[in-house]
Amino acid sequence: MTLTTVSQNKSHGGVQGVYRHASQETKTEMTFSVFVPPHADGTKLPVVWYLSGLTCTHANVTEKGEFRAACAELGLVFVAPDTSPRGDGVPGDPNNAYDFGLGAGFYVDATQEPFAKNYRMWSYVTEELPSVVAANFPVDPRRQSVMGHSMGGHGALTVALRNPSRYRAASAFSPIVAPSQVPWGEKALGGYLGADKAAWRKHDAVALIEDGARVSDLLVDVGDADQFLVQQLRPELLKAACEKANIPLLLRKQEGYDHSYYFISTYMADHLRWHAARLGR
Amino acid sequence: MTLTTVSQNKSHGGVQGVYRHASQETKTEMTFSVFVPPHADGTKLPVVWYLSGLTCTHANVTEKGEFRAACAELGLVFVAPDTSPRGDGVPGDPNNAYDFGLGAGFYVDATQEPFAKNYRMWSYVTEELPSVVAANFPVDPRRQSVMGHSMGGHGALTVALRNPSRYRAASAFSPIVAPSQVPWGEKALGGYLGADKAAWRKHDAVALIEDGARVSDLLVDVGDADQFLVQQLRPELLKAACEKANIPLLLRKQEGYDHSYYFISTYMADHLRWHAARLGR
Repeated sequence: MTLTTVSQNKSHGGVQGVYRHASQETKTEMTFSVFVPPHADGTKLPVVWYLSGLTCTHANVTEKGEFRAACAELGLVFVAPDTSPRGDGVPGDPNNAYDFGLGAGFYVDATQEPFAKNYRMWSYVTEELPSVVAANFPVDPRRQSVMGHSMGGHGALTVALRNPSRYRAASAFSPIVAPSQVPWGEKALGGYLGADKAAWRKHDAVALIEDGARVSDLLVDVGDADQFLVQQLRPELLKAACEKANIPLLLRKQEGYDHSYYFISTYMADHLRWHAARLGR
Repeated sequence: MTLTTVSQNKSHGGVQGVYRHASQETKTEMTFSVFVPPHADGTKLPVVWYLSGLTCTHANVTEKGEFRAACAELGLVFVAPDTSPRGDGVPGDPNNAYDFGLGAGFYVDATQEPFAKNYRMWSYVTEELPSVVAANFPVDPRRQSVMGHSMGGHGALTVALRNPSRYRAASAFSPIVAPSQVPWGEKALGGYLGADKAAWRKHDAVALIEDGARVSDLLVDVGDADQFLVQQLRPELLKAACEKANIPLLLRKQEGYDHSYYFISTYMADHLRWHAARLGR
């Protein structure tokens, strides 16, 4: 498997890279970013996965996320995948909808046509890309964690709940916690997985918890000025599910903050410290 | 004078805003950004001016500069102007040249046609915009400082050298220190100010120092992997001029860093602490 280096820039003592490879899962070229902090030769570092939100690529968090200073201090590798397959022949024109198709893979393996061939973001972010990263970067696969924003917060929660032994920590900014119950999620899960809502439960954090999935604890930040809070995010549903399941959830409503990277960047270092503490740093 | 709010987002406890106003100097609408850190009502804060480089608008540093955490900690307002006038009828198509015209105002008041009417960035950043900012934000005009990158590093150095009592500190990332002696500067100063190089000396940091301008001290960071270091930036010329003039210059060559915001963001907090110490924070 060949990795193409798109760019590498020294930053905060480490290297911020952008890379491209031919994905077997999505049948497309996929681009992702990796920050490797300063480290001694031969050491293997914990790795934090960051799953992005609707319309994003790896670039949004890479440019605006303000994660490098904290990752350098804490010795964490930071990986940001894309949010969908892209390229000639991939269905899902973003000019038709920002919340379905390109830039909106929702971290599922689609079963519905015409999406099933390329939209395999679940397998891509949980299996293929971790293998690519482990083979090419100084990471310790036994020490992984996952965070995300909005649609990517949904991704982070579901990835962690279904793989609690693989991801030692999980957190989210402004996550979609119950996609089966909100418009963004109904559209995406219906479009990728079909009308049978039973198939949606494996991709719905609240439903997963109701069905018995467990993690050691969760950190979630939302802004109380987030325009999507009430209709799409609904953190109170996660709170209720975690209380019932005895999952310790630190849910913080941050006063005056919205859905943007101005919010994410404010609490990024906080989240990375939470992850580092659970990754043995 | 009316200020239009383009956007405001809470970030790092303060407010990151983008604003627009009709400039009397440039005869165009001008857009700029201001970060106001958390502060007690009624207090007036020191203000750091950030002058951007070729091709940039206010947005590059606002999104990628990683200045807000440090500004919030240190209690500094951070203002980022645009790099040129823009809009219908403004000459200087950037499709013809990235280093002259739109996005490349070089912080001079042009005397040559067709640029003299709009390209008045010197007066804009040293007179008009400071008045606009003082009238609309909680700043203390007696405590200002200036920094910049590349072309904006040139701007910061010349602004500080010609107004040492107004700007209490000056620093630069990857500055053009002697525009009269390098291709970018020769093109820009020739195009805006004409062929007579005597008129260029007021816009050349090294020439200003040779001609007697003084500041209390300077901080300059350059990356030793900067592709423009040898031909365009030439920090050794500033070093020689400062040594001869007994201006304390802290010039740091940062190993492995390039010309990008990945470099700037790495040392931004350092620079802000340098400014804060000289602004009475």
